[in-house]
Amino acid sequence: MKNFAGTPGTLTALILRLFQCLFAVGSIASMATTKSFFNFTAFSYLIASMGLQVIWSFGLAFLDACALAKKKVLHNPCLLSLFVVGDWVTATLSLAAASSSAGITVLYFNDLGGCGLDKECRKYQLAVGLAFMSWITVWISSLIMFWTLAAG
Amino acid sequence: MKNFAGTPGTLTALILRLFQCLFAVGSIASMATTKSFFNFTAFSYLIASMGLQVIWSFGLAFLDACALAKKKVLHNPCLLSLFVVGDWVTATLSLAAASSSAGITVLYFNDLGGCGLDKECRKYQLAVGLAFMSWITVWISSLIMFWTLAAG
Repeated sequence: MKNFAGTPGTLTALILRLFQCLFAVGSIASMATTKSFFNFTAFSYLIASMGLQVIWSFGLAFLDACALAKKKVLHNPCLLSLFVVGDWVTATLSLAAASSSAGITVLYFNDLGGCGLDKECRKYQLAVGLAFMSWITVWISSLIMFWTLAAG
Repeated sequence: MKNFAGTPGTLTALILRLFQCLFAVGSIASMATTKSFFNFTAFSYLIASMGLQVIWSFGLAFLDACALAKKKVLHNPCLLSLFVVGDWVTATLSLAAASSSAGITVLYFNDLGGCGLDKECRKYQLAVGLAFMSWITVWISSLIMFWTLAAG
């Protein structure tokens, strides 16, 4: 199994995981501090999805850090399959959550002629933006995992 | 390069492509026959994204059919890379479009207490459902393509 940047147990993988956590936590913080997110199914779903993302990415960051500290290689095909499936599921959920929230944000900003609650609206936008950033980093991780598994 | 079900030039690939076209055309037809889709950015984006999906899937279905008729194998790595990138782009756009439209549909159905325009609403729901079906079939195709390329 090839050992290139981003495969489990490398520094690139750890950095990617930490960025996933960071963006997801930022998105949750921005959304959860608004007063009316619970009125929108999509916004609640965004928080749930980003929560799952944080748990998953933090777990894998921890594994990567352990592997780096012990200089152990994490290339067990069984473990890799688990990582691939988990990454794919979280990436799909993140994209779906970010897109559905973006749909509603665009609806309020553009289609219905501006958003009434000014500060709240900026928070919604920020949460959606950070969710997309989180998705991009998970997507890169999932591509690398899938490639490592397939090229194994 | 391995030749398993779903790789370019096989009957499974052709059937997958035809289903992608069918679902995407259904989604466009359902959305475009509503009276007010152009008031919603997400719904217009759904039509654009599904239009791109139809063009891409139809082109690849045509290629698969030609390869099947001539019993030629389409395993050129350069061609495969193009298919992988195209599939990934269209799959991502389809999921984003379906999710953002689903976000708005759920907003009108659940969060704002039922949808006023009854027949229109069913059409929106149908369009979103078909878009998700189209995404699932493209997603399967893109996974197979990526695996074929990586395992090549």
